[in-house]
Amino acid sequence: MKDYFKHHPWHIIEEGFNPHYNKIAESVFSIGNGRMGQRANFEEAYSGETLQGSYVAGVYYPDKTRVGWWKNGYPEYFAKVLNAPTWISVHVTIENQKLDLATCKVEAFRRVLDMKTGLLSRSFVATLPDGKRLKVNAQRFCSMAKGEVGAIRYAITPLNFSSKATLSLFIDADVKNTDSNYDEKFWTEVYKHAEEGECLVTAETKKTFFHVCSGMRYFIEEEGKEVKGRINTELREKFAGNVIQVDLNEGKELIVYKYAAILSSENHPKEKLVEHCQQILQNLQQTGFERLLTGHAAVWEHKWNECDITINGDVAAQQGIRFNIFQLTQTYTGEDQRLNIGPKGFTGEKYGGSTYWDTEAYCLPFYLGTAEQKVARNLLVYRYKHLQKAIENAQKLGFKDGAALYPMVTMNGEECHNEWEITFEEIHRNGAIAYAIYDYIRYTGDEDYLVEFGLEVLIGISRFWAQRVNWSDDKQKYVMLGVTGPNEYENNVNNNWYTNYMATWTLSYTKESLAYVKSKDSKAWKAIISKVSFSEEELAQWDSIVDQMYFPEDAKRGVFLQQDGFLDKELLPVSQLSKEDRPLNQKWSWDRILRSCFIKQADVLQGLYFFEERFDKEMIKRNFDFYEPMTVHESSLSPCVHSILAAKLGYEEKAYEMYLRTARLDLDDYNNDTEDGCHITSMAGTWLSIIKGFGGMRVRDGQLHLHPFIPAQWNSYSFKIRFRNSVIKVQVEKAKTTVTLDSGDPLNVSINDFLTSVH
Amino acid sequence: MKDYFKHHPWHIIEEGFNPHYNKIAESVFSIGNGRMGQRANFEEAYSGETLQGSYVAGVYYPDKTRVGWWKNGYPEYFAKVLNAPTWISVHVTIENQKLDLATCKVEAFRRVLDMKTGLLSRSFVATLPDGKRLKVNAQRFCSMAKGEVGAIRYAITPLNFSSKATLSLFIDADVKNTDSNYDEKFWTEVYKHAEEGECLVTAETKKTFFHVCSGMRYFIEEEGKEVKGRINTELREKFAGNVIQVDLNEGKELIVYKYAAILSSENHPKEKLVEHCQQILQNLQQTGFERLLTGHAAVWEHKWNECDITINGDVAAQQGIRFNIFQLTQTYTGEDQRLNIGPKGFTGEKYGGSTYWDTEAYCLPFYLGTAEQKVARNLLVYRYKHLQKAIENAQKLGFKDGAALYPMVTMNGEECHNEWEITFEEIHRNGAIAYAIYDYIRYTGDEDYLVEFGLEVLIGISRFWAQRVNWSDDKQKYVMLGVTGPNEYENNVNNNWYTNYMATWTLSYTKESLAYVKSKDSKAWKAIISKVSFSEEELAQWDSIVDQMYFPEDAKRGVFLQQDGFLDKELLPVSQLSKEDRPLNQKWSWDRILRSCFIKQADVLQGLYFFEERFDKEMIKRNFDFYEPMTVHESSLSPCVHSILAAKLGYEEKAYEMYLRTARLDLDDYNNDTEDGCHITSMAGTWLSIIKGFGGMRVRDGQLHLHPFIPAQWNSYSFKIRFRNSVIKVQVEKAKTTVTLDSGDPLNVSINDFLTSVH
Repeated sequence: MKDYFKHHPWHIIEEGFNPHYNKIAESVFSIGNGRMGQRANFEEAYSGETLQGSYVAGVYYPDKTRVGWWKNGYPEYFAKVLNAPTWISVHVTIENQKLDLATCKVEAFRRVLDMKTGLLSRSFVATLPDGKRLKVNAQRFCSMAKGEVGAIRYAITPLNFSSKATLSLFIDADVKNTDSNYDEKFWTEVYKHAEEGECLVTAETKKTFFHVCSGMRYFIEEEGKEVKGRINTELREKFAGNVIQVDLNEGKELIVYKYAAILSSENHPKEKLVEHCQQILQNLQQTGFERLLTGHAAVWEHKWNECDITINGDVAAQQGIRFNIFQLTQTYTGEDQRLNIGPKGFTGEKYGGSTYWDTEAYCLPFYLGTAEQKVARNLLVYRYKHLQKAIENAQKLGFKDGAALYPMVTMNGEECHNEWEITFEEIHRNGAIAYAIYDYIRYTGDEDYLVEFGLEVLIGISRFWAQRVNWSDDKQKYVMLGVTGPNEYENNVNNNWYTNYMATWTLSYTKESLAYVKSKDSKAWKAIISKVSFSEEELAQWDSIVDQMYFPEDAKRGVFLQQDGFLDKELLPVSQLSKEDRPLNQKWSWDRILRSCFIKQADVLQGLYFFEERFDKEMIKRNFDFYEPMTVHESSLSPCVHSILAAKLGYEEKAYEMYLRTARLDLDDYNNDTEDGCHITSMAGTWLSIIKGFGGMRVRDGQLHLHPFIPAQWNSYSFKIRFRNSVIKVQVEKAKTTVTLDSGDPLNVSINDFLTSVH
Repeated sequence: MKDYFKHHPWHIIEEGFNPHYNKIAESVFSIGNGRMGQRANFEEAYSGETLQGSYVAGVYYPDKTRVGWWKNGYPEYFAKVLNAPTWISVHVTIENQKLDLATCKVEAFRRVLDMKTGLLSRSFVATLPDGKRLKVNAQRFCSMAKGEVGAIRYAITPLNFSSKATLSLFIDADVKNTDSNYDEKFWTEVYKHAEEGECLVTAETKKTFFHVCSGMRYFIEEEGKEVKGRINTELREKFAGNVIQVDLNEGKELIVYKYAAILSSENHPKEKLVEHCQQILQNLQQTGFERLLTGHAAVWEHKWNECDITINGDVAAQQGIRFNIFQLTQTYTGEDQRLNIGPKGFTGEKYGGSTYWDTEAYCLPFYLGTAEQKVARNLLVYRYKHLQKAIENAQKLGFKDGAALYPMVTMNGEECHNEWEITFEEIHRNGAIAYAIYDYIRYTGDEDYLVEFGLEVLIGISRFWAQRVNWSDDKQKYVMLGVTGPNEYENNVNNNWYTNYMATWTLSYTKESLAYVKSKDSKAWKAIISKVSFSEEELAQWDSIVDQMYFPEDAKRGVFLQQDGFLDKELLPVSQLSKEDRPLNQKWSWDRILRSCFIKQADVLQGLYFFEERFDKEMIKRNFDFYEPMTVHESSLSPCVHSILAAKLGYEEKAYEMYLRTARLDLDDYNNDTEDGCHITSMAGTWLSIIKGFGGMRVRDGQLHLHPFIPAQWNSYSFKIRFRNSVIKVQVEKAKTTVTLDSGDPLNVSINDFLTSVH
């Protein structure tokens, strides 16, 4: 479906109604504001194929785990982001005919997401079964200025008739998840209320007992004058609405403004939810749609001012990168330490909306480079707050003495994933969480973070590594058995190089951090040491592991080995696979994938990407040349790492090829799965490909370094990036690179190894 | 619950009613006849804890697979043995009080399974809530003489009252499985009929459309005279019954004879089921309970005459081994090539009643040694009939050109198991199926089996091995990556010694078999070669694999290595585990188990057991001494192999210790899981421990060899064993072993390496 959405630098545009692509469009046109998200479901009734999705950040349901054979240590539940009570509905009935695009003739359908202002618009002309034609123009947004608020402007113009019409505006909590293991509904009713002009429903999630109060008010006008129709209130189970009889007059636009407030018990006392919701609704109605939109758009203007990327000479690329930035920005705003970034953000149910290592490994640099420091910091604090749960999780698996294993997938710090080869073995995630602390401090210089939160997390993770290795009498080295690396096309391998490296790096970094905190703030150090009962003997053991860890390598080729026994495989390049074999995960049985040499996503190369300054370029090159040809990139998180390394190695075409694989992943539905939601976390990888790949951005010794190149396909590109107290703009042209200060303090930037003062 | 059942050489005895142990007793007192099986559920109503189980051989339901994350190649269903329409019920109501042992006072409860005659008896005195006391004496059996028949004698004696009573006799197909993935019922109604004295229900399984027609007739008498009560017929959904008003007279025994016929569409045309069922029922009633029982007991007498084991000086051991022989004999009679032996036989739903490699590796030798040749042969033919499905199964995983991978778990030849590490990787099962052909021919001398069925199977399996290995450039050897060996506490390992050995052995044996068939019957050879499109080039490739296969070993210790990297583990004996750690599969997380050295069941040792003549005793000893101390025997299939090897190595105490672990596994509910059903397949292991372990029985060069020893705890023991055209009796005493011919042809037997003529 390449080019289904029209190219435009700031807009995503769909022209013509194609029910077959509707679920894809519902994902792509999703809007959100960090507190809530809404798929682009229609306001009017729709009996066609749709994935209904309203999401409220932090509200989840622990759906009972479904497994083949239970294994000891499996979690009891898989947390699922919930399809929450719907607030967008404006159902229209004219002379017993429902306005329903699945049953009407639809013309002039046009849907536009204006990324600059965060406004979703949709217009169409529908012909009802009896021939009545009406034009609809709908707009909506989830306010970036007011986190709990959504607003809709729904305008109806009868084109060839005048008639009575019935409008049904409601809140409906009788919704279900598509992804429900045992086909249950997850909400029960707590409270409902309907009066003329205002309706509320408070629903409670089963088991987790979150309350969500969703309320609506509305205002109807024609030619600038309020329309007061005959109103009936409607109360059903989990449902509260108004049914309004209005007159539609030929050629005249009737506008419905619907204001919604969605409050959760995460942010309000349960007993105050209704009261607060009513206050907000009143306020919304007084403010009105236009002023709300202005406030919302102003936030977007501010955001874009700090993080836009422009690409000259390639509108598709321009649209692609802005779409990625837009989605990431509306998914996570960094204002709430309890929230994080699900792989699908607020655009679908898949992967349960939970937190994966994607956040630390891929998303963190995006927020570091595009938002205030606290945004990235809060992502770290999220994990700090889960430290106790990570310790309990490790205990469940048999670890002790404060060893912490962060979960593979989580909503509240507890593990939700239930495949042993991932849950128990894909432990490199623990390293990514340690690395993120290092990465954050390197970028921001905020070393106090170690004192306040970081060191405790590092100690917990290091203790895990120290217990997870064992001494091999045979090798006379420490080994790490039974792990799954980032390349999930290998399971339960021994001595995954990446994981072993992560482990020893964490031990060393924790040791340094202990020393740093001790020297910087010995009181704080003592408090931490005492809180976690840390002993010097642990350090000695860590040293011993760092000194004597085993790392598989192929001396002949001069490369690190992904794991023990990798060279026993039949080593083939991906180029020798036939088209019918791809993607492997759909065409091959699992055992065949496991036995093959083919790599799902960067593994050894992920380590070389994270720690590139520790390896010379020739070593990186040898490994890249060995592994990249065997890599199928069947994770959307894979290409970016290869793009960045390729750029570093001067493989400019490869870098661009890798960039292209994710830049328009969802807009062009490359993987045939955008209908499930957008690949939010991999969008950060696309950003990384430009900034760290093409731009060559690095931070070393507290300074920004740039090594830009420009893909042959582009005329020029520019990006804004926030670094500490400055926002700079980097303009890359064929002939030269210009770096200017956009706002904040002057600073020195190393450009192609020349230190330049930017002011 | 050791010693809950009373010790007795021929009987299993329960005295006193203990509802807490009822499900265990239901398993232990199960009866069957190869065509059907019945847990020891009560005839009268019972509102306490129970696992209702009536099973009809070959009738299953493909329950929708339940998995966490779907993997390509997984089967769509898991076949389940069905709890079939119940035929045993005799419900008794006296003045509105149901006779129900959960609500009555129960005295003098006694349940006896007479293994000699296959008769289950139960007697008790119940006091109804209003004080009425009655004595019940119930007997039943599933006829070994008539496969589709069950008969019940249910006698009621009112002890302190005379009164009207209502008897409800029925067939009820409105039953469900406890093990149902989505809590469905699996039967629908096809036909029902109730008239005075006869009721039938034909039910159909969903999806598989098996029909089972269950019918009943009955006869009621008092003091030798027929009692004709007032009869009402009762028809409900999937239910047909008679409700009979009778007079109970104080002190007089009222006897209900209920005859049931259970016919399946596997054995009768669907349209004839009802007719045939009615014919059988009529015949049953004419024959009567006593004569039916006589016929049934005669079959048992014949069976015992060929396969009994006596143990002198240890009643518990005597009872244990007879219980094992009894269960195995009533589970599989070898008359139907479509049937096989589920891990729980007809005693429970667990493991789906499907076929595992248990059959070939453990059960086959039991049937070889205790039953006519055709019984074991039919077990092989069962796999022959599934060859095409095994080829399709291999194709699903990416294999080609007639490679066959037999399923891990199956009902009809299709794979049912859905954990990748087992389904796709525990491929050694394929080797066991090849080995069983060798084992059968070695025991019986029936080399014609190769011509008729065996060779085709061997070629399919060999082709699988030839494709499953790959050439390692690094090792300059063939390797086999990503397998799970018999020790399921390791998953996805490389070069499992046992599997590699099995593979090369199969290739060699298939080559020999090809040569044998060619020389014996070149026409048949040509037909097979042409049918399977066999080419000589394949043989050359097999030779190359056999010559250049890699086998991991520890040269220093002189042992084979279970798999690559085994020596990287921390090698600890089980004796260093604390009690709280055991059993590992309940106390440890899966990842901890996988990383540990601990072994679930014989792996390298399984190979040494199968191929002991290819290794010298010292080699076997070194491996036994290395692996056995690390073995936790958490599979009920583990101890027997160790018992046999220990016996061979002269570790007599160890052999006896291992024997004890399974001999009374179910009678003493060692593993706290007998309530789910009995461990039928591991019972064959117990038999093996005595015959091959203590008795040292082997077949070499077409002759029986014995090397008996007697455990210190016993005075003497004897066993009967069928070998080709002879049944011999081996009597082992402290001082001497006596071998006598029990029936059939005289033969030579090697006893402690001295050839002895037995006549």
